[in-house]
Amino acid sequence: MEKSLDVVTFGETMVLFEPVQMFPLEYVGQFHKHIGGAESNVSIGLTRLGHKVGWFSKLGNDPFGRYILQFIRGEGIDTSACLQTDEAPTGLLFKEKKSHENLNVFYYRKHSAASLMTPQDLDKSYIANAKFLHVTGITPALSETCEQTVFQVMDIAKKNNTTIVFDPNLRLKLWKAEKARAVLLKMAEQADVILPGLDEGTFLTGETGPEAIAAALNKDGKKTIVVKLGSEGAYYQKGEASGFVRGYPVAQVIDPVGAGDGFAAGIISGMLRNDSLPDTLARANAIGAITVGMHGDVEGLPREDELEQFLDNGSNNSDVNR
Amino acid sequence: MEKSLDVVTFGETMVLFEPVQMFPLEYVGQFHKHIGGAESNVSIGLTRLGHKVGWFSKLGNDPFGRYILQFIRGEGIDTSACLQTDEAPTGLLFKEKKSHENLNVFYYRKHSAASLMTPQDLDKSYIANAKFLHVTGITPALSETCEQTVFQVMDIAKKNNTTIVFDPNLRLKLWKAEKARAVLLKMAEQADVILPGLDEGTFLTGETGPEAIAAALNKDGKKTIVVKLGSEGAYYQKGEASGFVRGYPVAQVIDPVGAGDGFAAGIISGMLRNDSLPDTLARANAIGAITVGMHGDVEGLPREDELEQFLDNGSNNSDVNR
Amino acid sequence: MEKSLDVVTFGETMVLFEPVQMFPLEYVGQFHKHIGGAESNVSIGLTRLGHKVGWFSKLGNDPFGRYILQFIRGEGIDTSACLQTDEAPTGLLFKEKKSHENLNVFYYRKHSAASLMTPQDLDKSYIANAKFLHVTGITPALSETCEQTVFQVMDIAKKNNTTIVFDPNLRLKLWKAEKARAVLLKMAEQADVILPGLDEGTFLTGETGPEAIAAALNKDGKKTIVVKLGSEGAYYQKGEASGFVRGYPVAQVIDPVGAGDGFAAGIISGMLRNDSLPDTLARANAIGAITVGMHGDVEGLPREDELEQFLDNGSNNSDVNR
Amino acid sequence: MEKSLDVVTFGETMVLFEPVQMFPLEYVGQFHKHIGGAESNVSIGLTRLGHKVGWFSKLGNDPFGRYILQFIRGEGIDTSACLQTDEAPTGLLFKEKKSHENLNVFYYRKHSAASLMTPQDLDKSYIANAKFLHVTGITPALSETCEQTVFQVMDIAKKNNTTIVFDPNLRLKLWKAEKARAVLLKMAEQADVILPGLDEGTFLTGETGPEAIAAALNKDGKKTIVVKLGSEGAYYQKGEASGFVRGYPVAQVIDPVGAGDGFAAGIISGMLRNDSLPDTLARANAIGAITVGMHGDVEGLPREDELEQFLDNGSNNSDVNR
Amino acid sequence: MEKSLDVVTFGETMVLFEPVQMFPLEYVGQFHKHIGGAESNVSIGLTRLGHKVGWFSKLGNDPFGRYILQFIRGEGIDTSACLQTDEAPTGLLFKEKKSHENLNVFYYRKHSAASLMTPQDLDKSYIANAKFLHVTGITPALSETCEQTVFQVMDIAKKNNTTIVFDPNLRLKLWKAEKARAVLLKMAEQADVILPGLDEGTFLTGETGPEAIAAALNKDGKKTIVVKLGSEGAYYQKGEASGFVRGYPVAQVIDPVGAGDGFAAGIISGMLRNDSLPDTLARANAIGAITVGMHGDVEGLPREDELEQFLDNGSNNSDVNR
Amino acid sequence: MEKSLDVVTFGETMVLFEPVQMFPLEYVGQFHKHIGGAESNVSIGLTRLGHKVGWFSKLGNDPFGRYILQFIRGEGIDTSACLQTDEAPTGLLFKEKKSHENLNVFYYRKHSAASLMTPQDLDKSYIANAKFLHVTGITPALSETCEQTVFQVMDIAKKNNTTIVFDPNLRLKLWKAEKARAVLLKMAEQADVILPGLDEGTFLTGETGPEAIAAALNKDGKKTIVVKLGSEGAYYQKGEASGFVRGYPVAQVIDPVGAGDGFAAGIISGMLRNDSLPDTLARANAIGAITVGMHGDVEGLPREDELEQFLDNGSNNSDVNR
Repeated sequence: MEKSLDVVTFGETMVLFEPVQMFPLEYVGQFHKHIGGAESNVSIGLTRLGHKVGWFSKLGNDPFGRYILQFIRGEGIDTSACLQTDEAPTGLLFKEKKSHENLNVFYYRKHSAASLMTPQDLDKSYIANAKFLHVTGITPALSETCEQTVFQVMDIAKKNNTTIVFDPNLRLKLWKAEKARAVLLKMAEQADVILPGLDEGTFLTGETGPEAIAAALNKDGKKTIVVKLGSEGAYYQKGEASGFVRGYPVAQVIDPVGAGDGFAAGIISGMLRNDSLPDTLARANAIGAITVGMHGDVEGLPREDELEQFLDNGSNNSDVNR
Repeated sequence: MEKSLDVVTFGETMVLFEPVQMFPLEYVGQFHKHIGGAESNVSIGLTRLGHKVGWFSKLGNDPFGRYILQFIRGEGIDTSACLQTDEAPTGLLFKEKKSHENLNVFYYRKHSAASLMTPQDLDKSYIANAKFLHVTGITPALSETCEQTVFQVMDIAKKNNTTIVFDPNLRLKLWKAEKARAVLLKMAEQADVILPGLDEGTFLTGETGPEAIAAALNKDGKKTIVVKLGSEGAYYQKGEASGFVRGYPVAQVIDPVGAGDGFAAGIISGMLRNDSLPDTLARANAIGAITVGMHGDVEGLPREDELEQFLDNGSNNSDVNR
Repeated sequence: MEKSLDVVTFGETMVLFEPVQMFPLEYVGQFHKHIGGAESNVSIGLTRLGHKVGWFSKLGNDPFGRYILQFIRGEGIDTSACLQTDEAPTGLLFKEKKSHENLNVFYYRKHSAASLMTPQDLDKSYIANAKFLHVTGITPALSETCEQTVFQVMDIAKKNNTTIVFDPNLRLKLWKAEKARAVLLKMAEQADVILPGLDEGTFLTGETGPEAIAAALNKDGKKTIVVKLGSEGAYYQKGEASGFVRGYPVAQVIDPVGAGDGFAAGIISGMLRNDSLPDTLARANAIGAITVGMHGDVEGLPREDELEQFLDNGSNNSDVNR
Repeated sequence: MEKSLDVVTFGETMVLFEPVQMFPLEYVGQFHKHIGGAESNVSIGLTRLGHKVGWFSKLGNDPFGRYILQFIRGEGIDTSACLQTDEAPTGLLFKEKKSHENLNVFYYRKHSAASLMTPQDLDKSYIANAKFLHVTGITPALSETCEQTVFQVMDIAKKNNTTIVFDPNLRLKLWKAEKARAVLLKMAEQADVILPGLDEGTFLTGETGPEAIAAALNKDGKKTIVVKLGSEGAYYQKGEASGFVRGYPVAQVIDPVGAGDGFAAGIISGMLRNDSLPDTLARANAIGAITVGMHGDVEGLPREDELEQFLDNGSNNSDVNR
Repeated sequence: MEKSLDVVTFGETMVLFEPVQMFPLEYVGQFHKHIGGAESNVSIGLTRLGHKVGWFSKLGNDPFGRYILQFIRGEGIDTSACLQTDEAPTGLLFKEKKSHENLNVFYYRKHSAASLMTPQDLDKSYIANAKFLHVTGITPALSETCEQTVFQVMDIAKKNNTTIVFDPNLRLKLWKAEKARAVLLKMAEQADVILPGLDEGTFLTGETGPEAIAAALNKDGKKTIVVKLGSEGAYYQKGEASGFVRGYPVAQVIDPVGAGDGFAAGIISGMLRNDSLPDTLARANAIGAITVGMHGDVEGLPREDELEQFLDNGSNNSDVNR
Repeated sequence: MEKSLDVVTFGETMVLFEPVQMFPLEYVGQFHKHIGGAESNVSIGLTRLGHKVGWFSKLGNDPFGRYILQFIRGEGIDTSACLQTDEAPTGLLFKEKKSHENLNVFYYRKHSAASLMTPQDLDKSYIANAKFLHVTGITPALSETCEQTVFQVMDIAKKNNTTIVFDPNLRLKLWKAEKARAVLLKMAEQADVILPGLDEGTFLTGETGPEAIAAALNKDGKKTIVVKLGSEGAYYQKGEASGFVRGYPVAQVIDPVGAGDGFAAGIISGMLRNDSLPDTLARANAIGAITVGMHGDVEGLPREDELEQFLDNGSNNSDVNR
């Protein structure tokens, strides 16, 4: 059977309110509306690179839910599996920027529509029909039923030869550390590809170096582990093969949010292209570097031609193009 | 004992997000931050008229909670009884204006900080120390413990010779009609002064005219009933006395929200001044008319000198004052 | 053969710059970006009502072209037939509002990407596959090749049993009156349904009343003619049947642009539902009334449930819905 | 000698801060910068109509002074006689709009640069070189030296055959009523043309009807008196001739400020064109009607072609001009 | 007698207009409203740290005066001693940012309400009731009566055992250097604690190093002198004790304004806590470093918990706190 | 004959739309209106320095044309030779800033009003009357008739002893490289002063170093060649004389656009002042450095006093000037 979707991903996308002023939130008078969600970020990143992607969540049957649906569908992503409910509102996220270095987020996502997702909501054939499944460690933190759903999805993927890519995305504002560690490790066991950051790797395994983290997460030796090292680059380990791939210099970090999701999109894209692992990591590093130099979680994600130009030049500079 | 506060009121104040564009909310890109809450509206209205008012709620210990506290305290209101909690976030409210006539609100207040208020939070002497207590029918709709709290507050007031003013403020987005009717009628029984709108009066009593509504709400004959009739004015009934007081003409309705709260402030203010009931209703009608002709729930509430000028002129017009 | 699309429409959609201030354009310092295009307005109107619609144009392969594509696709419209070109930029449109009554538009659409559409760009089966084709008199005014394209499309429709709905949309800024009259009359001949405004009808036929205009446009007697009479309503004539259908009152006209497109969407929707002509016109009148009371060309177009509520109430008012 | 300027006018132009929100000023968070000044309004109105105008003031040698100079010069007005000083800052003006009907202004013009104007600043030949001089009753209210300057200017005009047009522009925020009356009456004596509003006429003469006001101001019978009657139109009296000229209907008053200045520009323009007095008043009425229907003091002032179109149609409406 | 206020401070607070664009002011079209004033900055800084502070000024009885009062009262500061007058308007301040390095201010404060403060306005017991008095060298520059008032305040403090903290805040736009030097030195003599910057110290004493400046200002040896050295830190000298305390690194200077006021708040806070002088300077350095990295004069001032976290980490960085 | 203008320049000025957000253009919702045009930038730069400048173009007879005319005239530039046409609209320019380093522009200038300029439009005496003519290599790229016009202008200048300054301003978005090279070299031959950037010099001559470029462009040895080296400074060669002049350090590049135009203004200004070539280049370098540190093409151009202060200090820093 030819699979018609390259990647399927699912998880909560919220309406993200970006403060217009760089002030503590109590002094911010104006906000701009955007969307925020790790999985939809990844789906947009992959679509920009030319892959065919499906994303779904459970949205509120309200204006904010419609906005999210319109935005993601507008990007060319298949949203036919996305659900809407009258039971609860669409989740919200407020960013606070006190200074360029001092960021914070405030959630209105407890009891949100997405937290009501259950295994019964799942369309088995939709997931079976994708080459890759992308899941994050945010989803099981949302609710009991979300935790059940994420494991059910992974189970469907496993049974249908869909490669599972797992990005831990540790969110300690959402759950207790102990519970988080247990669940994320259980997800990691099910995954084919794992993409921890260095701190996440340490949190999960107790190890401190990328090699040791990779080893600890890959006990059965069948997985691909990619440890993200920020601007330093990334480390991969798969079977016998392993290595570091250096990151790209970033002139000025504008917005670090979304870089990890761009990185994940790069990894999955490289795998879909059957690139070598070093090339795949270079691709992921490049997207990460482009993303942190631009505003917005998704607006800065490169199209395939922009990415290739960056990979050729090793940078994003342009003389004013006149 | 001389009571040191003229009025105490309590209830949930939320951060109110006002859309910059008159569009369905999914198309609105920018929002301005304000505050919204019937009880704090009343407290601001009374303070502008020169009365000494205390207001409290349970706010989230977060930037939005701080914003609300700063705004209300800045108006000169005593907020020393206000609580903050880490247990839940401050509630939110989004306005939607599709057209000048088509307004809607979307709440993020379920499970909010205010919904966690309990009778144990109450400072008995604070309430006992006020001449008037103002309560609305919104508070018991927020949670079980809020319902208990509002009855506990009324009980304290009753035992301490504090006059209870009750504004039904029916919110059918928050609870079921049947439950709402039962609770609001129970509150009405405890109250000394009741301020229903015509529709609310009908909802509560099944009667359709102001006289019949007043009669139905005043079975013991000891209460003052004021039925709000919108731009038509208002009707009062107290003991033998009763009558209609005509409203003021409004050139253009800009924002109807907050007019009822301004009206309530006018009633309480008139009573504090020992004005006659017809004068008290005229005062309330005037504030209502001023408020609907201006933007914002609280920004348009008049100061005493502005109100007196309006009562003298019967209108709000100014030639450009140069 | 079951046709999979309800309606297909095509024509130029431009980026529309809306002035933030109500000033002559030379004094406007800020603009908001939207989209503008009669045919995409109709496609969005129909999609909101639950119909399956395809729209296409030739867009510039530039950010503005991408924006238009994302917006329309986000609305749930099939854009798979839409083209992009490097040969010319996406067209632009600036609105000027000197006062509520004094509106003007400034085009940057001469030599635009859409003006390069040719009959060779057409996907015959895409058009054949739709129950209805919607065309306007704007397209032939854009260029020689656009004129050829619009007649080619109508020819395909005719041969494939696709009902042709023609909205004259006279734009005298784009071409000479004489040429316009000749081409629009030729289009009218090909059409099954014609939707002139009263002035357009007079321009085309020299007649001044709706009955005479309808008669003049329907010489073969096989067409359905609907003459738009603004807030008065509309007049229809089909075979023996004819009649006026009264419009809905509008409290305040906010933005008349887009009302004709909403009307067209209502007519096509009614026909797809097999409603009677009077019901179809009532549907169209209702959408027109809703649209003129709201900002934006497309943001105010109602969803099916909103339209039905309006048709039930005969108005758009809401008490604040709390 | 051929006079090279049609009109010269002088007086304080301030930076005008327009509130973005319709709130009492304490709640307005954002302001837009414009210019405000009766005399520069008139100079812009006249220039739009094709006349050659010179304007001057004393501005601060600061960014706000530069802004005013750039704006007025940009309109095509001769600013070669305008002065700048380091002695005091450019004056400011804040508008407050509590509602559509409730406007107010707050000045920061006491001790401003313009208040430092003295007779020594005057360039005699510049004034002598103009066919008309326009002065207002604002200037003598600014300071002692401004009062001296305005009388010196009128004296120069008188000696050089320059027709003096005097618009009282009573501003009771700037000076005491008694002093104002005395000075304005003294200016009126010197003037050839006087343009009081009805209230101003009553303030100056104690008379209440336009005829009586005109008679009282024209004791020597050599003047032209035009009494402004708002939307009703205007009344003129010159020698034996007198009459009412009806005003134009205004759909919605957007901003009344600047209408009187537009009216004055119309009167002077008509006189420069040697139009009859009734035609001159019609011209002035038309500009007044156009101006009140648009935002801004000067942005809405019509160009000659726009004015003629209005005079032909009797209104400002446009169908959207496409 | 137990003193009920920790600190009292007084001085002019103005409405501060912040340009939205980084342009020379003549090209800035939009402004945001804030407050600005050294003494109110200090009062807010101290209140955030948990101290009980009173502030007063003489404000205009106008919307801008009400805004300032609401803002400062909203922060939890006692404003009961603040005066309002109809005699003069509230002072204004415009910031100009041509580039990140090129800042300028334009005042409208000459003849402002605050400049009318006189010794007669003072409430002796209010000052006597505070542990600390904070005064700056701005106040005596405002007017003769302000100069008298500041010395009268210091005199009251001296007689009532209130510690006087003096921050020179040299403003050469407001007065002549010679006069400034004389008055500030006279204030320094009366003070218990003096907080000059290095340039100010040199201006006052003619000395160039912190040690020499401290020695010159502390001739009687009874004072505490703290010389501010910018990002380098600060130097203290008191009796025999003296030393340098190093400052904290700042990633990017966003807005240097207000850092000195934050420093002053830190010094007074440390003294109220009975911290050692080195700890007190570290506290002040930390607030200065936090403040320069954030926008706004007062918005970035830390709460006690934020300050302690900074002192623990030696920096303000956060990973995005999710 | 005394020449009454110091400099005349001509070329297309467009309305420039500046994105409010740093996003790819498809995600930018708001734009600010400015003007953009190399030649008008130079004319403004020269006027700020006190020179008498004339500028002209052919603008659309539309609001955008009026805006450009008002802006440039407002700066004090003679615009009496500027033309307006109904034949075509005023050209537009959209800036895109994806990041601080990644800039792009999108033109709507093909078929613009300016592209219709012909030699017949020229006022010979206007050009003859100027000491300097400034032309750029943009103009001949706009159309055939523009190319003819630019050569005609240079011919008039040559015959009337007007020094020709030529700035290549290579715009490869507007024409083919081969054609561009040929035309620009032909212009260079006619010029007295040539101001290539290093890349432009290489493009034109095939040489890579400033000395070789200068030699190649100055075969007849009669010209002055200045090669711009960005922040490094510039190199000049004239007859026997040649040398490098070092640039000024720039703390943060805010907006590189317009720096070359500021440089050109500096060169022409130095020549008008009869400064030495090293002093002239220092002047030009300083303006370039000031301009890149500020927003906007023209807003940051210094006045003579600001420039002299910069040349004295070697930098633009200010302590906050209070």
